[in-house]
Order: sequence, then structure tokens, then C-alpha cells
Amino acid sequence: MVEAKVKKSEALDPDFSNLRPIDFRSDNVASVSPEILAAMVEANSGTAGSYGDDEFSRGLDERFGALFETKVTVFPIATGTAANALSLSALTPPYGAIYCCSAAHIHTSEAGATELLTGGAKLVPLQGEGFRFQADALAHAIANAGIGITNRSQPAAVSVTQATEFGTLYRLDELAAIGEVARANRLRFHMDGARFANALAALDCSPAAMTWRSGIDILSFGATKNGGLNTDCIVVFNPDIVEDLAFRIRRSGHTWSKMRFSAAQLLAYVENDLFLKSARRANALAAMIAAKVRDCPDITLVAPVEANEVFLDLPEMMIDCLIKNRIQFLRRGPRLIRLVCRFDGNEREIDRLIAVLKQCE
Amino acid sequence: MVEAKVKKSEALDPDFSNLRPIDFRSDNVASVSPEILAAMVEANSGTAGSYGDDEFSRGLDERFGALFETKVTVFPIATGTAANALSLSALTPPYGAIYCCSAAHIHTSEAGATELLTGGAKLVPLQGEGFRFQADALAHAIANAGIGITNRSQPAAVSVTQATEFGTLYRLDELAAIGEVARANRLRFHMDGARFANALAALDCSPAAMTWRSGIDILSFGATKNGGLNTDCIVVFNPDIVEDLAFRIRRSGHTWSKMRFSAAQLLAYVENDLFLKSARRANALAAMIAAKVRDCPDITLVAPVEANEVFLDLPEMMIDCLIKNRIQFLRRGPRLIRLVCRFDGNEREIDRLIAVLKQCE
Amino acid sequence: MVEAKVKKSEALDPDFSNLRPIDFRSDNVASVSPEILAAMVEANSGTAGSYGDDEFSRGLDERFGALFETKVTVFPIATGTAANALSLSALTPPYGAIYCCSAAHIHTSEAGATELLTGGAKLVPLQGEGFRFQADALAHAIANAGIGITNRSQPAAVSVTQATEFGTLYRLDELAAIGEVARANRLRFHMDGARFANALAALDCSPAAMTWRSGIDILSFGATKNGGLNTDCIVVFNPDIVEDLAFRIRRSGHTWSKMRFSAAQLLAYVENDLFLKSARRANALAAMIAAKVRDCPDITLVAPVEANEVFLDLPEMMIDCLIKNRIQFLRRGPRLIRLVCRFDGNEREIDRLIAVLKQCE
Amino acid sequence: MVEAKVKKSEALDPDFSNLRPIDFRSDNVASVSPEILAAMVEANSGTAGSYGDDEFSRGLDERFGALFETKVTVFPIATGTAANALSLSALTPPYGAIYCCSAAHIHTSEAGATELLTGGAKLVPLQGEGFRFQADALAHAIANAGIGITNRSQPAAVSVTQATEFGTLYRLDELAAIGEVARANRLRFHMDGARFANALAALDCSPAAMTWRSGIDILSFGATKNGGLNTDCIVVFNPDIVEDLAFRIRRSGHTWSKMRFSAAQLLAYVENDLFLKSARRANALAAMIAAKVRDCPDITLVAPVEANEVFLDLPEMMIDCLIKNRIQFLRRGPRLIRLVCRFDGNEREIDRLIAVLKQCE
Repeated sequence: MVEAKVKKSEALDPDFSNLRPIDFRSDNVASVSPEILAAMVEANSGTAGSYGDDEFSRGLDERFGALFETKVTVFPIATGTAANALSLSALTPPYGAIYCCSAAHIHTSEAGATELLTGGAKLVPLQGEGFRFQADALAHAIANAGIGITNRSQPAAVSVTQATEFGTLYRLDELAAIGEVARANRLRFHMDGARFANALAALDCSPAAMTWRSGIDILSFGATKNGGLNTDCIVVFNPDIVEDLAFRIRRSGHTWSKMRFSAAQLLAYVENDLFLKSARRANALAAMIAAKVRDCPDITLVAPVEANEVFLDLPEMMIDCLIKNRIQFLRRGPRLIRLVCRFDGNEREIDRLIAVLKQCE
Repeated sequence: MVEAKVKKSEALDPDFSNLRPIDFRSDNVASVSPEILAAMVEANSGTAGSYGDDEFSRGLDERFGALFETKVTVFPIATGTAANALSLSALTPPYGAIYCCSAAHIHTSEAGATELLTGGAKLVPLQGEGFRFQADALAHAIANAGIGITNRSQPAAVSVTQATEFGTLYRLDELAAIGEVARANRLRFHMDGARFANALAALDCSPAAMTWRSGIDILSFGATKNGGLNTDCIVVFNPDIVEDLAFRIRRSGHTWSKMRFSAAQLLAYVENDLFLKSARRANALAAMIAAKVRDCPDITLVAPVEANEVFLDLPEMMIDCLIKNRIQFLRRGPRLIRLVCRFDGNEREIDRLIAVLKQCE
Repeated sequence: MVEAKVKKSEALDPDFSNLRPIDFRSDNVASVSPEILAAMVEANSGTAGSYGDDEFSRGLDERFGALFETKVTVFPIATGTAANALSLSALTPPYGAIYCCSAAHIHTSEAGATELLTGGAKLVPLQGEGFRFQADALAHAIANAGIGITNRSQPAAVSVTQATEFGTLYRLDELAAIGEVARANRLRFHMDGARFANALAALDCSPAAMTWRSGIDILSFGATKNGGLNTDCIVVFNPDIVEDLAFRIRRSGHTWSKMRFSAAQLLAYVENDLFLKSARRANALAAMIAAKVRDCPDITLVAPVEANEVFLDLPEMMIDCLIKNRIQFLRRGPRLIRLVCRFDGNEREIDRLIAVLKQCE
Repeated sequence: MVEAKVKKSEALDPDFSNLRPIDFRSDNVASVSPEILAAMVEANSGTAGSYGDDEFSRGLDERFGALFETKVTVFPIATGTAANALSLSALTPPYGAIYCCSAAHIHTSEAGATELLTGGAKLVPLQGEGFRFQADALAHAIANAGIGITNRSQPAAVSVTQATEFGTLYRLDELAAIGEVARANRLRFHMDGARFANALAALDCSPAAMTWRSGIDILSFGATKNGGLNTDCIVVFNPDIVEDLAFRIRRSGHTWSKMRFSAAQLLAYVENDLFLKSARRANALAAMIAAKVRDCPDITLVAPVEANEVFLDLPEMMIDCLIKNRIQFLRRGPRLIRLVCRFDGNEREIDRLIAVLKQCE
């Protein structure tokens, strides 16, 4: 593995303390839900057809169809980056423009995966408050895009991240308004749901309401950050996309032969609302942090805490003090840190974080 | 999952028998080695750095370095198709030519993954006996390629499949001869080792001998077909390739965040020679079939059985009879079938197969 | 210009003779028809709208529509390679298969332009007599392609070269039969007409008969090899392709701003059947060679001479002798040479060629 | 030609006046320098080697080498879009980032050509005064790019437009400072010289000073907008790029067979400083406009007029009035128009423009 070598570590790792570290670096540092591992073990029985021709994989469409209250097609995918870029590859011609927030993960942190898998489409960043963009920004951009002018990238798709990269949320009416602009201009609508469950738990609405009822054509449905193992999936609402997408997924090397083990993860993830329970726990821990840091005069919440992420502005000296006390997090600027709460975190961790924060003031 | 819908099933599924089927469709219909599942369960403890910054992933290079007796870099990858196409993407410019056998999986059965991930390089098929090509065929092709002529795809890489798509093997001296032609012409050399362990067990040589000592720069190291779960890997011997490849892998959505669970699979796969033991079992079962069908006058072995695959030419009536008796396999032509032996198969299955074959004559 | 350096010269250039050389290397070594140059000079008057918004460019569709007896859309393009690859890019998804002759220029001599501009589609070579393939070969290939199976490149288009790379011709019924197979399987049909005029003159049929009436959706209409300057064009018969193609052309840098000068070339090229007259002259010269070499016992015509190219098999000593006598041609094998007749060639050149051939025997 | 149909005309075309229009729409609506046409006619003599193997093409490197006072390699190219995207394709891996001004033509108006030909690299826009960016903006962006982090596009190249898309200029010290940051960070440096001659004439410096002496590795050398016909070229200063680029150009269909006619245009363009004389004339006309509109209280110069483009902010009523008086220009906003002066324009046109402007106030 070259990652540890090529990647300059963004994470700060204290080494002069004998405390056990508390890990707020990301939700992908978490463990796997026992239910999910158990389901994989259970799936390991006898032979099964490959490439999705097994009982687990065959059950996905129906199970997720019930969850989303509509007919869907589900494709298990190894990573969120792949789920996003592949989804978008089915929504745009190579000369298309894809609108997204300027802070969107697809634009800033996926190494150009979308550009690769779309054959060179253009991500066009939009601005907005709370690290989101609104329908009017999209409408304005489309109006100035030069539709039909051959030297301009042609509006083809729009993507929102829900919950956003800064832990904020789109309200249902905001999503629906974006969906309306998309439909009126014949753009397709993608949702990057790396933290879909966290958003759903926070909004306390139905999966249908937050997706296809708001105009979403295709969803990157994240599981890994919320107790999954190594499988997210694409959920397709718009049937026109399905066949083309199936070829693109296979062609990018994202169709597992022993698909049952990936399907089993996903089935267990939604069984008995496991995904919602896990997300609620992580969200609640983030809310605890937010509530408590409001008392700290030197600390500012950079974004409203609506899901499981907390962005704090605080003095560099405090940041150093946190590190010395083995609080793990990502640094996003000289005074900016990100804390992510995990489904497998607990209140003691939050208590200790707050205690350290107060002590560092 | 759309696979079952889009894909016209190649597999024949009997429905008029109450026998339990015996599954020779592929080695990817098999189960997962208990040791591998156990390792994943064990890896599920506490938090761990993401994207390879964990103790399992960090251990890969050293563990595989010991196995291959040289310094290597290991990248866990979701599928063999991705491992192949990503490996090749690091070996060729977009205007390059990649030589391979006309029956190579990368050429016939990967949906153009190599064309996608290389930016449009050209696979140039070579002919040869036993579904392999030899060094002289490669040398001849290079000599006629038009090196330096700008309207011709430029020789850049060569790929062998070991064991081949027809269960045959390259001998070490054949590999070395191809490697020698590659080096002399500044081509890079890739091995598709989807059935690497089966080949290694059959040749009874060292991993080093079958790879870098024969000139291999980069290896798709398959685990899935031999008891793995959902992770193969790329093993890089040539250090010049590593950094470029790391970016290409990330960009194609093949870098898992919870990498420890993929690394754990691979570590367990090679621990105590598990991979070799599993491969030997599958190979032995295939050898049993080969030995026994030699007595059947109506059946011809299409290719020598050197690993775990058996290709048989037999009358269509016999094929129908096999199906009725719930022997599962892939049909590759009107009289041509493929039987693949699994690491978790057993002699009783072979005995029943042979009994059915004799009864169908 | 690096061509002369990078490209190992295929052409043989004698330097030990004081004769003036006679140039049979290609038809692209020829001059430009005076009518075409005159039209460009005439177009140079005042200002004109750019990117096709000028009277010359606006007249193209109507003029070519009259020529082809149907509604067409015409795109001037710098080269035949671009015309081919761009045409095909509008006919196939990136995971598509394009069928062509194994000797097709798009497959052997365009540096992977089709792979680049289609996003990695696969050219699948077909075999046939006379350097052509027939409808049954296409039908057979499609039948074995695995339509709907996601790991296989999906049949999307078929391409013929007319006249072929070896100066042979498809008959109208052969074209129509290929077109019929294409339509029945929902493939689109492209014609590489680098030597379209030579084929048309030889078959003495209408442009309509040789194209859309035979099922052609899109045509690379060559002018450069037949007295043009630096502009070929794409002629689109199938209106469904037009809009997508317009974006692809612009995006590949093949939309000139001062389009009038390219359009003027094309208008002059078809005015008063200039293109047919030029092609007839070149064809007639090739026919003269073919007629006369039939008497030479040591020379074999490798392919029937149906347009303006002559392929000869002859002893290496004779080849050396030709070179010494300053006959210029391309060498295609130890005993194989190609002679191409130019629209601006003449009978004296043929007479001298024949005299030299006889003297070299 | 579909352009006129697909493209919604940005140009305003008056139809209720019997005045002869005056054309400030672009410099690509201009005619061709008689010297250039004459050179093409003269080149039309006898046969000549193709793909650059002719005396005109062979002379390009030496002629441009003399002009630039260093060894260069010259590739004639059909359009500026192709020259830009192909140049950049030789400077970046597919996962690279290319820095440019947010108003750069490559970013806003080339239909994603760079994304296509680089295999999906990312254009990263920088901000700055006068529609230019400065070295510190580049340095800052690189510092925040995440070099070595595999989920980030990797800094690979930087591109400036000289003269810029708004008719402003980079000073030599500004270019050199950008070049210094590029070199220090191992980025390669491209100049989009669509209006290279206009910039050179305005700065009154040597071609060497404005290019390689300022760190430029590769230049899109425009001719078409300044009296050329249909050929620009790429001038390569950095020899490491040449071979790779030659293949990329051929593969994108930008290598003409009858290259002599394109080479002849370029040779005539620089002969006797034709290109400078033409540029000086256009620049002088723009300066006249700038000088005279300073008196008009309702008109604001949006950008300093440093080359041959004039951007004016003026009341919509005045814009309508200009149109009625048959002044042709492009509209870039409700109150924003662009006037471009042509090498073949004259003072009478400027006088009439000013008269109309005053009359419309």
C-alpha cells in the first residue's frame, strides 16, 4: 500500500501521551456493525451464481424498493468515489456540465474520478450559504451556460451532497426546488449520499421524500461511513439510466464476481433500520459537542451542526493542546478543525473531548 | 442489481431434477475460506486510520515482499478486471499498443476496461498454441509495429495470463523469453494472475521465479477465485510505476477507506500458504476429471488440463444430459463446455460428474 | 515539424539518378486542383461570420443535399483521420464495438484516433476476400458478441472503406447487404470515403446509391487525396446524429473559425463534377498500369485494380531497379509495393513506369 | 454545417438599415493577408512528400527557430482550440491540475477540449486583476493543492493567454514570475497565443523574451485571427515534450497529409514581419477607439485597451442604437459589448464608429 507514503498525512498523531486517543478523524475510521459482519459470515454457504446471480443480490432491488417506496435498481459499489463518478457518467455526455457546490467532494476530493469516468465532462461549482447551493444559483448558471453553443460545456446534470461536506443539510423544499430547475432544463439530478443515513435521521423524513420525490434520478447510497465494511451502492430511480450504467460499472472494474458478500452487507445495513439507528447515534454525539462548545468563548462553530460533523474555529494554541491530549481530528486550516462522530462512538468520548477543550482554553 | 437482467445467462440451470446440483460454472461461485472471514472479523476492533493508514494495510508490502523475495508495493483492488486495467494504465501512453493472447480476458471479457482506463490504448492480439503466445510472436509483432511512425499505436506493454483462460500454463522459460523480448524493446510486462495460485501450485516454483525473475513488472494477484471474498490486489515489482499508479487507482474509485478489511483478507490468504493449499486442491480435482474422461470415447479434452479448468468437446446430446442431471457449467460453443474446479470442491463431486458422464454416453 | 524525424520514412527516395522522379507514393503527394485554389482566393473578400456563419458554409448543406439527393448536414474537417474518428464517436457508446475490415485504415493507421475520440470503444476486425468483409461475416460476429452481457463490448457500429485500402470496391449489393445486417441489429453504418470519388467514378453510380440508399448513416467524404487542399468533410445522412456530433467536433478542435475558406474548397470540389473528373483520370491511369503489367511474367497484381491504387508483387531486385530509376512508391513488404495514381498524373508517367518495369525484368 | 443551427447566435445582425455594416465582431471575421494566399498558390507546384515530408514543412523549425532565437519544433494545427488542448495534453497526466485565469478561453469557451485530450485533467481557475492572474495566486493555489495526496488533482501545468481574453497584457516580469513559480514546483508553462502577435507588437519585445526566456515550455501560436487562413501552430521550446506530442497530434486527427499548404501559410505569416505589421495595425485601431471614447460620459472602458480588443460598458439604449446603425459586435452582458479590431480594418471604420457612438448618446 502506497497511500501512507504518497499521501502527506493530514491527520495529526500525538506521540507524547500515554492516554488512549479519541478518534474524531472521520467516520470511516470506525468499526463495522456486528450485524453486517454476521451477515457476511452467514452468506458464506455453498456455491452461488456470480456477478449478481445469487439470492442476496437478487433481493436488493426489492428490499431497497420497499425502503424507497418505488421501483429501484441497486448496484453494489466498492467506494463512494466510484458510486459518484459512475452515477454521473450515466447522466452526461462527455461535453456536458455538471453543477455542484464549490465544496463538493466530487469536485475537490475525488482525484478527477468524475472527469475520468465521464470522458471529460466539466464540474461547474456553485456558491451558496452553509456549504450548499440553492435552486436560484443553479437556474442562473444554466441561463448563462450557452445551451446549444458548441464551444460551451452543455448543462447535463446537477449533484448535491446530503449531508454536505460540512455536515449541513438541504431541506426537502430546497431539494425539490433544485429538482424542479433540473427537470425544467432537462438536467438529471444526482445525490451524493455518503452520509445519507445521517441526513435522513436528522431530517426525520422518508427515504422517498429525500430522493425521488424531490426529483433525484440517482443516488450514491453510502454505508461504509456508518458501520458498513467495504460496500456502498448506487440506487437508480430513473429507469432510463439503468442499462447504460450497468455497462459502465462493469467496464470500470466495479462489478464483483462474489457479489453475494457485498449484497449481504447492504441488506444487513438496512435491516431493522440498522442504518438509521447508527446514524442517530453519531448525530446525537455531534449535537452534544455543538451544545457544549457554545459555552467556550474562544471556539466558534463554523457551520451549523446538523448531522455528525463538527467544524470548529479555535486558536492554534488550543489545537496544539488538543493534539497533546490525544484528541484525533483533521486540520482544515490554521484555526479550523473537523471532528466527525462515529456510529460506534460514545458519550464518554464526548465528555473527555469537552473536558480537554475546557482545560486547553 | 441489473446483471441478472441485462446479462443473458450463459449458465445453464436445470429445473426438472430433484438432485442437488454440482457447480462447475466457475471458481468464483465458491465460498470464502473460513480463515479469511475470521481475519476480517478479527480486524474489526476499534478505530483505524483510513485509506491504508492502518496496521493491516501497512503490513502488506512487507508480507508480500517476503513472499516474493523482493521489495514490492501492494494495492488491494475490488476485482480482477480493475487490477488488470489499472495495471496496464500505468504501463502505456494512450497511444500505446498492449500485446496479449487473442483469448486474453483483458481483450475478450472485460468490457473495454483497459481501453477506458488507459485513455484508449490498443490491445493487439497474438496467436499461439495452447491459448498462449510465445516470445517469437511478440518479437515479430513489435518488428512490424512501426515504432516511431506517428499513425501507428506504439508498442508499450505485453500481458500474459497465468494460468491462461483455458487452464494452460506458461513454463518459466517461456515467460522469461517473453520478458527478454519485452525488455529488449522497452515494453513493460504485466501478468494477469486471476489464477496465479493455481499456476504457482502447478509449476511448483517460487512466486519470484514466476514473476519478476521472469521480467514481470506488475502482477494482478487474484484471490477471489481461490477462496477470497471481494479483494484481489496489484503487486508492483517495478518501483517506477508506483506513484503514477497510486493516483490512477484512487481516481478510478478503487481505494477503499476502510482498507483494513481488504488488507486482512489478503494477509490471511497468504498466511501459512493458504492460497497454495487451496489451489492445489482445485488443481487436483481438475486433474481427476482429466484422467477419467480420457476413457470416454465421445469426449475430447480441448486443452491440456494444467490448472483447475477443464474444457471438453462432447456431443450436444451429452451436454443436454449433463444439464438434466444438474451438472452446472458454462457452455462455450455448440459442443464445447468449461468445467472449473473449486478450492472447496471435493472428490464426491468429481465421482458424480464422471458417473453422469458415463451414463450420458 | 517533427514528422520527418519521428516517422521512419516508409518511402524510398533514390538519389543516384539525374532523372526526374515519378511519384506514385500516394495521392496525397499531388497538387491542388486550380479550381479549388481559385475558389479560396475568391472567398477572400471582406469580412464574414465565423464558425460557419458565412455564405459559403451555409451553402454546403444545400449543395451536398443536391449531390446526394437527400437532406444532409456537412461538417468540414481537417483530415480523414479526424473525419473517421469523429463520425464513429457519434455512433457508439464508449463500451461499444465497431466492426471493420482487418485492413481498415481506422484500425491499422490512425494511431488510435477512434479509441481516443469514442472514449475507448473497440474496433473489431473482420476478414474477407479482396480486403473487404461481407454481410455474413458481420452477422456472424454480432451473433457471437454477447449482446446484453456486461463484460462484452456491445455491437454499435460498422465501418467500410470505399474504395478500400487496397483499391478494391464494395458492389452496391454488398453494401446494401451490410446495411441490412446493421439495421436489423441496430448498428449504425459508417463509410470511410477517403477515396469516395474514385469508388463512385469506378462504380458509375449515384452518390445516393453508394451511401444512404445502401444504409449509410454517416460518410467521411474525402477531398484531399483527389485534388483538395486541406479539407475533407463529414456528410451526415441520419439526422439523429447531427447535434451530438457538432459538439464532439468543436470539442476536438476541428471547427475552424474562418470556415469560409474550407467550405469554398468543398464547394469547388463538387462544382461541375470536378471531383468525378479528377477521380476518373486517376482511375484510368491505374487501369493502364494494371493492363500493361499483365504481360510481365515476374509481376503479380495482388489485388484487382478497381480504383486508383495498384499493389504489385515482384522480385526484390526489380524493386531496387525501380528505385534506381526514380520511380517513387511505398513498400509494403519484401516483395510488395503500392503505386497510387494521382488526379494530376498523366500517361507519360505511366509509359515511363512500364518502360522501367520492362527494363528491370 | 450545423453551427448556424445549433449555435444560438451571439452576434447581433441589424436588418433595417441600408448602410454597409462595420464588423467588430471578432478578428476571425477578417480576410486573409494576400501574402499568405499567394504563398499557398505558389506552394502548389508538382508533388511533395506528405505529412510534413516537404520543403515547406521541413523549413518551419529553422524559420521559427530564427524568429525565437532558439531551437524549436513547430506543428501546424487547424485551430487554436486544438493547439491549446493538444499542448496541454503533453504537459499533464490525466490526474493533473492545470492552472489558468478564470476567464481563460481554455476554461470557458473550448467545449471541454482540454478535458477530452488530456484524458480528464482539471482546469483550476485563478483570480486576478485585469483578467490576468499573478505569480502569487499560482503559488498560493499550489501550496493548497495537496501534492502527493492521491484524492487531489496534482499540479502539473499553468497556462496564460497573451494577449488575454479581455485584450490586456501580461508584462514580461509578470510572466517571468509565473514561470519561476512553475519551475520551482515542477509545473510546465503554456501560453495561449491566439493573439500572440498583438501582444508582441504592444509590448515591443522579442518573441524569445515573451516566451522561453520567461519560462514558457510550449506556445499556441495563433495566425488565423491576424490574417491567417486556417492554420495556427504549436511551437515547442522544451524538447522533452516533442515526441509524445507528435503522437497525440496525429491521434487527434490534426496532422494534415498535404502539410505544405499549411506550412506555407505559416512561413508567409512571419516573412518580413508580416505578422507584426498586421498586429500593429489592429492594435492602433483599438487604441484610437479607446482614446476617443474617453470623451463619452456614458461609456466606460471595462478593461485597459492594450492589444486589439475594446470592452465597453454603455447604456442598453446606446447598444440598440449602435445595432441600428449597423455596427457589428458581440454582446457580453446587458451593458457590456466587445469590439475587436482587425488587421484589415481602417481609420474610416473607427471614425464612423465614433460618429455613431456620439450620435447615439
